[in-house]
Amino acid sequence: MNGFIAVHCGAGYHSDSLRKDYQRTCYLACRKAAEALVQGGTAVDAVEKAIIELENSPLTNAGFGSNLSWDGLVECDASIMNGQTLHFGACGAVSNVWNPITLAKQLCIKQCESLSLGRVPPCILTGQGAKTWAERMGLQIVEENNMISSRALRNYKHCKRKLKRYSVQNDLKFSPLDTVGAICVDANGVVASGASSGGVSLKHEGRVGQAASFGSGVWAAMSRDGLTPSIAACTSGCGEHLIRTQLAKNSAESLLESSPVIGLDKCLKEKFLESPFLWDIPERLGGTLALTFNPQVGEGELLWGHTTKTMCVGYMSTDTAKPKCVISYLPPKVESGRKAVVSGVPFKVNMQPAPVLQWEIKTEPHLNGSL
Amino acid sequence: MNGFIAVHCGAGYHSDSLRKDYQRTCYLACRKAAEALVQGGTAVDAVEKAIIELENSPLTNAGFGSNLSWDGLVECDASIMNGQTLHFGACGAVSNVWNPITLAKQLCIKQCESLSLGRVPPCILTGQGAKTWAERMGLQIVEENNMISSRALRNYKHCKRKLKRYSVQNDLKFSPLDTVGAICVDANGVVASGASSGGVSLKHEGRVGQAASFGSGVWAAMSRDGLTPSIAACTSGCGEHLIRTQLAKNSAESLLESSPVIGLDKCLKEKFLESPFLWDIPERLGGTLALTFNPQVGEGELLWGHTTKTMCVGYMSTDTAKPKCVISYLPPKVESGRKAVVSGVPFKVNMQPAPVLQWEIKTEPHLNGSL
Repeated sequence: MNGFIAVHCGAGYHSDSLRKDYQRTCYLACRKAAEALVQGGTAVDAVEKAIIELENSPLTNAGFGSNLSWDGLVECDASIMNGQTLHFGACGAVSNVWNPITLAKQLCIKQCESLSLGRVPPCILTGQGAKTWAERMGLQIVEENNMISSRALRNYKHCKRKLKRYSVQNDLKFSPLDTVGAICVDANGVVASGASSGGVSLKHEGRVGQAASFGSGVWAAMSRDGLTPSIAACTSGCGEHLIRTQLAKNSAESLLESSPVIGLDKCLKEKFLESPFLWDIPERLGGTLALTFNPQVGEGELLWGHTTKTMCVGYMSTDTAKPKCVISYLPPKVESGRKAVVSGVPFKVNMQPAPVLQWEIKTEPHLNGSL
Repeated sequence: MNGFIAVHCGAGYHSDSLRKDYQRTCYLACRKAAEALVQGGTAVDAVEKAIIELENSPLTNAGFGSNLSWDGLVECDASIMNGQTLHFGACGAVSNVWNPITLAKQLCIKQCESLSLGRVPPCILTGQGAKTWAERMGLQIVEENNMISSRALRNYKHCKRKLKRYSVQNDLKFSPLDTVGAICVDANGVVASGASSGGVSLKHEGRVGQAASFGSGVWAAMSRDGLTPSIAACTSGCGEHLIRTQLAKNSAESLLESSPVIGLDKCLKEKFLESPFLWDIPERLGGTLALTFNPQVGEGELLWGHTTKTMCVGYMSTDTAKPKCVISYLPPKVESGRKAVVSGVPFKVNMQPAPVLQWEIKTEPHLNGSL
């Protein structure tokens, strides 16, 4: 199947020495997603495959190599939204699951099923319960230590030392925003979005961030009438601020305005930088990767915007040979957390003869006795 | 301080034999909240006190006496939103904490604090980590068995037996919707909302529902200009459906329309019963308790709407001697999950001489080294 995929590995600050590595990671993630599409996968499959690649990289704060919590554990958040079914699956604060995004995808898929006694399949599972569910689904479970990269451990020890040295008050900050995300539109016109994050460094155990919260980390909504565009978005930044501003939903919906670039710019200004929900936050750090797509003509626009120093983005169409990977910068002299920069590129998808519309989804809800 | 409080103990089906008990529970919860206000408590304090009373009742599906999970555990969700600060605190799938709503309130309050190294206080904590945090805050921690009421245990065994007997397919349903909520406006014009829930019976461990999800279980937003009304709402129903439709936020905001009753009725119809997010759900069960308040004149409207057979609501002003408790019914012959009924009453609050406005909040963010 044809399609278009875009990924990011965080809005934050990508150090000069690692920029090539981040770009390479995005490159590989795009390739994996495109492969999945070419082999007949859907937008949801492509998003999963891209994020698996990003999670498996020790460079990103997702899956293996995630930031460690206060007690030195890896606890991951991930979610997927299917723009066709509008289903959402998320796992929060989950340890031992090698690919949290696959768990989120399975939860999303299972939303279609009915359980016995009129019970409803869970859309958000957390902690130990999420791990048990993943185990039952046959997902790869690993020892806790196997999720910890040497880089994450070094960073953890460094932060703990700093904390000890400066004890109570200090203005040292780290930039733990390199969470990952992916959005995709396939040749059926289906859009999907996914996000995965290890959360902030030294977070409290059990903390759940935007990547497991509805409307905050991911958004995808397919055209319901074939006329309004399909939209998708995934976000990165400080989880608590992204939850309160529901940045994924807001930035995706902002693309419905007559000019998507102006829409997204306005959204980042009014609904993030000037949001009443962040009135007490001096520095508003966030980024979003979003797309709008017109299934009638097979054309869309990919946009990214951020208030952080940098954002690393990759994208490709199945028609092109290679992904394109860029690092987007705030203009020099602009202080991060105060202003946003928005960029974008147009893209095309060779559509299937008859793209699916939302109301045409065929599902056969079936009862089963399992969890 | 003066104020107005409203509580509910679920949108679902309240059996004839227990209706008086449900009403009594709402009555007591209103009294506790009014006492808190009279003793100088804020809207947030009043909401907490009301919900503590509801959680402590073995009748409700919140705190002690909550539905049991698949493995026979009590795992609670709760959240509080402060309409003045727009802060939100939530705990999900937490065991052993006697009053989950107090944990949610503490998380909400701590949002004002800065942590060392630029870390941000968590707004959602789940599972074991939430319990540890509660313990450090000095909250009451109990043995797991102490959260289980004999009624919940009976119901659990009954359901498990049923499942065994009918094994895979059956159309037996229970009505596990008796979660609780409270909304309040105090004489400073501050609005707050809280919700607490034990989740659906036989849920998977780690499942998080609307009562711990931003925008879904609670919403509160104070007038920012003194002209637009302040709004608050809390919801009850199937967690997964309330998350996807963000019913608390949507129903609170619907009251900003020229007629709150028409606004809420339209919201329940268009954003819940006809929501594209519930396209595959045959029966859409939910309810909302919401208020709108004009701080300039000290007048407001309390509304409740539900698509379930019944909803049990209580309310009182600190000026009145006794709470009023009602059970609201869907009209006879109307099938539940297909149509909504909306009712309401006007109320007054004797305001403090100079009500606080949102931008006047004084906080002194201070750094501390603790979690």
